[in-house]
Amino acid sequence: MDLKELARLLEAHKHGELETSDALERIKNLHFEDIGFARVDHSRAARLGFPEVVFGGGKTRAQIVGIVERLVQRSPNVLVTRTDEGTFGEVRNVVTDAEWHEAPKLIRIRRDKKDRGLGPIAVVTAGTSDIPVAEEAALTAETMGNTVSRIWDAGVAGIHRVLAERNLLQSSRVVIVAAGMEGALPSVVGGLVGVPVVAVPTSIGYGASFGGVAALLGMLNSCASNVTVVNIDNGFGAGFVASLINRRWEPPTE
Amino acid sequence: MDLKELARLLEAHKHGELETSDALERIKNLHFEDIGFARVDHSRAARLGFPEVVFGGGKTRAQIVGIVERLVQRSPNVLVTRTDEGTFGEVRNVVTDAEWHEAPKLIRIRRDKKDRGLGPIAVVTAGTSDIPVAEEAALTAETMGNTVSRIWDAGVAGIHRVLAERNLLQSSRVVIVAAGMEGALPSVVGGLVGVPVVAVPTSIGYGASFGGVAALLGMLNSCASNVTVVNIDNGFGAGFVASLINRRWEPPTE
Amino acid sequence: MDLKELARLLEAHKHGELETSDALERIKNLHFEDIGFARVDHSRAARLGFPEVVFGGGKTRAQIVGIVERLVQRSPNVLVTRTDEGTFGEVRNVVTDAEWHEAPKLIRIRRDKKDRGLGPIAVVTAGTSDIPVAEEAALTAETMGNTVSRIWDAGVAGIHRVLAERNLLQSSRVVIVAAGMEGALPSVVGGLVGVPVVAVPTSIGYGASFGGVAALLGMLNSCASNVTVVNIDNGFGAGFVASLINRRWEPPTE
Amino acid sequence: MDLKELARLLEAHKHGELETSDALERIKNLHFEDIGFARVDHSRAARLGFPEVVFGGGKTRAQIVGIVERLVQRSPNVLVTRTDEGTFGEVRNVVTDAEWHEAPKLIRIRRDKKDRGLGPIAVVTAGTSDIPVAEEAALTAETMGNTVSRIWDAGVAGIHRVLAERNLLQSSRVVIVAAGMEGALPSVVGGLVGVPVVAVPTSIGYGASFGGVAALLGMLNSCASNVTVVNIDNGFGAGFVASLINRRWEPPTE
Amino acid sequence: MDLKELARLLEAHKHGELETSDALERIKNLHFEDIGFARVDHSRAARLGFPEVVFGGGKTRAQIVGIVERLVQRSPNVLVTRTDEGTFGEVRNVVTDAEWHEAPKLIRIRRDKKDRGLGPIAVVTAGTSDIPVAEEAALTAETMGNTVSRIWDAGVAGIHRVLAERNLLQSSRVVIVAAGMEGALPSVVGGLVGVPVVAVPTSIGYGASFGGVAALLGMLNSCASNVTVVNIDNGFGAGFVASLINRRWEPPTE
Amino acid sequence: MDLKELARLLEAHKHGELETSDALERIKNLHFEDIGFARVDHSRAARLGFPEVVFGGGKTRAQIVGIVERLVQRSPNVLVTRTDEGTFGEVRNVVTDAEWHEAPKLIRIRRDKKDRGLGPIAVVTAGTSDIPVAEEAALTAETMGNTVSRIWDAGVAGIHRVLAERNLLQSSRVVIVAAGMEGALPSVVGGLVGVPVVAVPTSIGYGASFGGVAALLGMLNSCASNVTVVNIDNGFGAGFVASLINRRWEPPTE
Amino acid sequence: MDLKELARLLEAHKHGELETSDALERIKNLHFEDIGFARVDHSRAARLGFPEVVFGGGKTRAQIVGIVERLVQRSPNVLVTRTDEGTFGEVRNVVTDAEWHEAPKLIRIRRDKKDRGLGPIAVVTAGTSDIPVAEEAALTAETMGNTVSRIWDAGVAGIHRVLAERNLLQSSRVVIVAAGMEGALPSVVGGLVGVPVVAVPTSIGYGASFGGVAALLGMLNSCASNVTVVNIDNGFGAGFVASLINRRWEPPTE
Amino acid sequence: MDLKELARLLEAHKHGELETSDALERIKNLHFEDIGFARVDHSRAARLGFPEVVFGGGKTRAQIVGIVERLVQRSPNVLVTRTDEGTFGEVRNVVTDAEWHEAPKLIRIRRDKKDRGLGPIAVVTAGTSDIPVAEEAALTAETMGNTVSRIWDAGVAGIHRVLAERNLLQSSRVVIVAAGMEGALPSVVGGLVGVPVVAVPTSIGYGASFGGVAALLGMLNSCASNVTVVNIDNGFGAGFVASLINRRWEPPTE
Repeated sequence: MDLKELARLLEAHKHGELETSDALERIKNLHFEDIGFARVDHSRAARLGFPEVVFGGGKTRAQIVGIVERLVQRSPNVLVTRTDEGTFGEVRNVVTDAEWHEAPKLIRIRRDKKDRGLGPIAVVTAGTSDIPVAEEAALTAETMGNTVSRIWDAGVAGIHRVLAERNLLQSSRVVIVAAGMEGALPSVVGGLVGVPVVAVPTSIGYGASFGGVAALLGMLNSCASNVTVVNIDNGFGAGFVASLINRRWEPPTE
Repeated sequence: MDLKELARLLEAHKHGELETSDALERIKNLHFEDIGFARVDHSRAARLGFPEVVFGGGKTRAQIVGIVERLVQRSPNVLVTRTDEGTFGEVRNVVTDAEWHEAPKLIRIRRDKKDRGLGPIAVVTAGTSDIPVAEEAALTAETMGNTVSRIWDAGVAGIHRVLAERNLLQSSRVVIVAAGMEGALPSVVGGLVGVPVVAVPTSIGYGASFGGVAALLGMLNSCASNVTVVNIDNGFGAGFVASLINRRWEPPTE
Repeated sequence: MDLKELARLLEAHKHGELETSDALERIKNLHFEDIGFARVDHSRAARLGFPEVVFGGGKTRAQIVGIVERLVQRSPNVLVTRTDEGTFGEVRNVVTDAEWHEAPKLIRIRRDKKDRGLGPIAVVTAGTSDIPVAEEAALTAETMGNTVSRIWDAGVAGIHRVLAERNLLQSSRVVIVAAGMEGALPSVVGGLVGVPVVAVPTSIGYGASFGGVAALLGMLNSCASNVTVVNIDNGFGAGFVASLINRRWEPPTE
Repeated sequence: MDLKELARLLEAHKHGELETSDALERIKNLHFEDIGFARVDHSRAARLGFPEVVFGGGKTRAQIVGIVERLVQRSPNVLVTRTDEGTFGEVRNVVTDAEWHEAPKLIRIRRDKKDRGLGPIAVVTAGTSDIPVAEEAALTAETMGNTVSRIWDAGVAGIHRVLAERNLLQSSRVVIVAAGMEGALPSVVGGLVGVPVVAVPTSIGYGASFGGVAALLGMLNSCASNVTVVNIDNGFGAGFVASLINRRWEPPTE
Repeated sequence: MDLKELARLLEAHKHGELETSDALERIKNLHFEDIGFARVDHSRAARLGFPEVVFGGGKTRAQIVGIVERLVQRSPNVLVTRTDEGTFGEVRNVVTDAEWHEAPKLIRIRRDKKDRGLGPIAVVTAGTSDIPVAEEAALTAETMGNTVSRIWDAGVAGIHRVLAERNLLQSSRVVIVAAGMEGALPSVVGGLVGVPVVAVPTSIGYGASFGGVAALLGMLNSCASNVTVVNIDNGFGAGFVASLINRRWEPPTE
Repeated sequence: MDLKELARLLEAHKHGELETSDALERIKNLHFEDIGFARVDHSRAARLGFPEVVFGGGKTRAQIVGIVERLVQRSPNVLVTRTDEGTFGEVRNVVTDAEWHEAPKLIRIRRDKKDRGLGPIAVVTAGTSDIPVAEEAALTAETMGNTVSRIWDAGVAGIHRVLAERNLLQSSRVVIVAAGMEGALPSVVGGLVGVPVVAVPTSIGYGASFGGVAALLGMLNSCASNVTVVNIDNGFGAGFVASLINRRWEPPTE
Repeated sequence: MDLKELARLLEAHKHGELETSDALERIKNLHFEDIGFARVDHSRAARLGFPEVVFGGGKTRAQIVGIVERLVQRSPNVLVTRTDEGTFGEVRNVVTDAEWHEAPKLIRIRRDKKDRGLGPIAVVTAGTSDIPVAEEAALTAETMGNTVSRIWDAGVAGIHRVLAERNLLQSSRVVIVAAGMEGALPSVVGGLVGVPVVAVPTSIGYGASFGGVAALLGMLNSCASNVTVVNIDNGFGAGFVASLINRRWEPPTE
Repeated sequence: MDLKELARLLEAHKHGELETSDALERIKNLHFEDIGFARVDHSRAARLGFPEVVFGGGKTRAQIVGIVERLVQRSPNVLVTRTDEGTFGEVRNVVTDAEWHEAPKLIRIRRDKKDRGLGPIAVVTAGTSDIPVAEEAALTAETMGNTVSRIWDAGVAGIHRVLAERNLLQSSRVVIVAAGMEGALPSVVGGLVGVPVVAVPTSIGYGASFGGVAALLGMLNSCASNVTVVNIDNGFGAGFVASLINRRWEPPTE
């Protein structure tokens, strides 16, 4: 609740500048504005460089185009995740600087490229099949104002592959690791770095991988204490959290 | 690999100050020292304020006392998690400033109280039964040099309880949420703040809670994008990750 | 068992108005009529405003059209759930006032619009993807004689969205909540109202949502005591139960 | 939000009867009181006959006695669930009219016995082993002002047992059914009555009953449309929801 | 091992009618013939009226036609399960009296119609969607020489439907029950009869029925002691076992 | 419904030998007797040699003794399953010919030893640890009037052990197989015999046997078509079903 | 780490043949070469007869053709698993001696046919549907230089089928067993031989086979101590491990 | 089947040295001896150095002592797994050279210490808690005639720990890896060596490790092709299989 605004309203009412009925309504609104986090959030999002995000799954092309048209008016950066190239074609008709990213099936509009991070974010995959999920994470992080290093195909069965990238990993502020199958890579990376590791299980694998469950359980049970986990294939979530971790932060001044 | 040290060795060998066999051995050791992350880590840990941690589960009292005695010589701060009061009695015989924390069954030695965090860390629980896990997280974070706010019993069925703490939540650098049963609180908190939320499912609940699985799945599927998850009842892990997120960070200078 | 009718038959038999063989047959039938709940139910259903319902899944178009033709002769209101628009076309050929509802893929014939409820029923969704299930619930409730308020997209990650509807929720006789992903909304709504909440988990989500299992477990473990649960995606069941709760009830006069 | 109280405060402030700082504080409190559902709820609970409930599991005897002492001062009816007889002994020392119920391990204080229900609530069990859970439901419903009929041991393998109670079932406003093993009884009861059936799976069974999971799945998949489900062994929840269904309801007048 | 044949061989060898090398070979073969159950079984199968059975799933049309052609030469009765109508067309080209059964997708050749059962076998379904599985069971039982009564759509939510068929059920030597969803019908039927009930869970259902798992668990946990269970959708297995139960049996005379 | 008795009542009423009120009551009772399967069952059970069975789990000693005392008055044979030796001591005080069976923890009273089976029943175990479950099955079958052959420790990893008993198996009317771990034995036995095999998974095993789930799944997926399955550790159920299969059967004469 | 090469570099640097900066770089590379197992592995693979393997799943035709073209230049033997015939057509355009194997959907190039095994490897299947997985294993083993015996369709329900192959099994150095459904065959084979059995669960089955989980659990719980398990349908892995077991081995000489 | 012995019997019978009835009996026995793998196995076991093994779980002390007494007469080496120290005391009373191994709770008698392996077997654990399982494997392998290297506490979160042991690992003929939690170590080890890796998941872990299931799934989905898996905590099985792999093998000479 914005106490300054409330004090102002009280004074205005006391001095007769505001009818009681108007004061009632405005205090009530103030109250809902106060709870009404989302709208405040929208402006804050734009100010801080948070992209607007549309989850494309289950939406029609027309819906997506309509939503993007409106979003692009108030936000410089927009992401559409889990969509398809046909939709991209229609989006580009109305937003000519939209980009298509094939691997993660993602549309991006990126006009604000200001760097807002403390350091680089490394995104690592165990195998080449994990790249679509990892790219979703990487593009999200970039769009939120971060510098991203990509390290593809560094799975634990050839341990030298990830060891060779130790310098890059150890100079990152946060590391995202996408892995399917046994999901062991975050544990190894977690042991190499002193920063948070955001682990994304992918649904890559067959047989008893159960669509990512094996990798998910592996990551939740990681013997490295600096590993946290997001949902299976949730590259966007990993990129979002990593961006918040990397964001320069100051205590609220209010 | 420490390139300066390698260059120094090469020069010494070139100038005959070092026999070839000695150079071989020392470069090999250098190599293993380079890979040998753990020992480097120990000194770095002490320098940075990471506590030494002993997982007490499955260890005998004698083992724990022996380990603590040695750790306390090189680290000002030591945690023993998942232990019991009898063990604490024996630890206190040799380390008189050890503290016993009943709720999380945790022994703490804390001699270095320097603040190393950017801002406060909030730790929230859904119910009173989640407090032992949350305390493990809170004590870990404190011992790693953070200021911690505790918000107990703010579950979603009485939504005003968490809303009343919005200011506190919104001024934190990172929020830890411990919840059992349906595990819904991290989603609500995630929607209220713009920082990472580390969610800890607890094994609290009955019937179809399946020892924390319901809460775990709830948190993994959170509709708030800033939520990440650690293992069931893993308060230590949550406190550790939150501390790494909150830590003042600078790119490595090497 | 209808004792009056039995007494009447006994008297008729005693007085020779009924042959023993006829009496045997009729008492046997009486008996089966007594157990034979369904046929009694049909007439009672029509009298009370219960719609006839056809589960369309796994039935051929010809079968559905045939069934609807017969049902519409004895019942003013008919629902066909989980069907498709082509089937609707054929139904409309024979029942011209049939309506097609795209979101829930449902055909409705509604000739009896009498209000039979005590108060309004609120139907709430966490996200827009939950609307098809919620619409199935809402249309069922309407067809059973209830006034329905729809509150779409009020998920917990933007808690102000559901709080803004508190008045509407608190003036309802029963609330239906459809949610996928973590399924947390029924707990929040349950804490806001003093009436029963019928929770419908939806199969919306990805990764570890496991086709609605995460939401189902979340709802079963709700910390709000006024929440009950129906099967995943079972909008019809939720609407049916909510209608029974809201129905004006009088003890049977027999 | 209590608009009358807000108007009164505004007038008092306008007329100088209230300092601005006091007005700020009281409107803020009013606000929190408005959101602060629980405290309002407490008084409403007492007025409407909701009992105060303490979940005994995981609380010490001293905690339970302390909580009961305070609750009994503002609420005529108090329930303590999942406790033990020793705790009851200590509670009775301070509240002499407390009752002990052995089967559900429940303490009850019941001073307000006013009937608040529309009709009777029937509570049915499949077997004798389900009685503790069913008693928890029955006692909860009684304590919330309902008349309860108990029908024990009416499982489906001897179908005549439940059929013999048809009259009693069909004259109830709502039916609670507790069953373990295959959990089939709610479907049969659901087919016999035209009112809501609240199904409680119990953890009774062995082998592949998996602690109530078989019964839970059976109930969720019931072919009777009037069945809803609560958590395994959650007799209290079933009794609570059934009471809300049976409660005489009027639209809020505000 | 056929001891008479062995004695005969020994005598022949003793009297020089058989070379030692031949005796070795034939005793070895005798041994393998003895273990070689399947070939003996083929002749016994034909003699006893067991049909030859081809599991069509995963086989090509040409393979199925080829197999049927050979089987029909030594067995009067042949079943092909889980196939399609196109395959039937090709089979009929070579075996003109082959029949197509649409519901269970089954081809049958039935030339031996001798009755080999003690009494009738009743096959019951809970709903109309369970009929394909039940028909597979019924056709298998008929083809193995049994008289079969079909009772469709007698699910427990309208308990009168199964009660009305009590006489038929109670005069059967064995009852097969196919049910999906909660799988409760075998328990009710089991309580009505004093003979074995073979329960077949079907994959009919949605949401938390998990492709027949809910029904399977319900049946395994049946409170009726005379219920046994076969695999999900395994109508053939149920018909086969029921036929063996119903078969007139005499101790082997060897 | 007993039509002869009904005809008799009708005549008596017609001729004034029965008041209308009495006729009403007796026809109503007749009706309930007709549906009232259990009581009819009790007398039929005694006549046919079904034992009375008490599931001892969860009952107090006093309850068990009391129940046994009453049962023994109307039934020559009584079983108490899942009980303990102390209870046996108290039962023997009142029923001196009661027997204690240590392996299955079962009390048996067996006064009627008439053979009611067509042939012998073989009971086979995979290992020695499966004997308690198998003994429960064997004792149940014996008490129901069958001759039982016990074949212990014939698991598939030493296949000669079961092959050596082929003659015994192939001369049985029905075979019960109890196995834990991978539960493979019923498939092998099923291939050796032409009669029904009742498979009982046991909870024997460790690691990924999951308390009998591995064995249960193995048996449900048996490639032998003559295998049916009962619940994990349900020796009683297996013995009961096998007895019904082996019972001499005649069509009801009514 | 190659100590000889390191000594050589040190000498060259000492004698000024190598600049310090070059020495630094080359020792660093040497170091990575040392850890860099994969590249070393490639040459070793070719030398030892390990084929190069491409997992075809999820790769485009162009990718596969491109990869095969490059692999075939350094390795005489190449396998492409889980691909399709169209891809084979394109591969054959560039590698004319490529072979297509229909059952396992596998492309093989096999130019080095040297025998590297100690003895034969037997590959056994329970049913004909398991052949594709078994063929993948068999072709892998052959391509790695082993002699392979194929034993198809020897499932346990006709135990004579596997017994008839005892000699062949008992003369093999290692046995691979592929089985779906209940997965019992490895236990039987394990009991017949004194060598390691590599068990491959297949996803063959229906109902409660859960895509190979029943077979997997059966194999993990095998009562034969010489059974180990690979992932569901992982014929390649089974063939690979069996080849390593069968390989002539000598201690490293370094 | 021992053809030489059969030929001898035939000759003896032919020459009248053997009555026909005796010949029948002895050929039958010979036959069973032929199938009777176990008894042959016993002598072969002793000759080859296989220990006799008693699974102590679920056996009484008296049973174990009795079995050991008999085994020790025909086998120089005996193992008793999963037993306790009290049992050891009683065993030592009769077999004075029995050894007690505390970590795996195992009794060993080892009189034959001949080396039968091709090379050393390495046994590796991820953590100290995995040692009991690993010791069971190591002691089994030693008792079967192998040289064993133990590498404790080399988990992947400190990757240098396992890398430091590369030489030891790469000179082993087979490697056993025991790991709980995420079970990632076998993948890393598998990538470092060119020999089979036998992975043993342990039940070490908490929360979502589900008693070893997370580790089991991790190992089954290993991205290293040379990894096979045994049951959770099955150290004995791992040691047994590894010994068979390492055994010097020659084709049977029959």
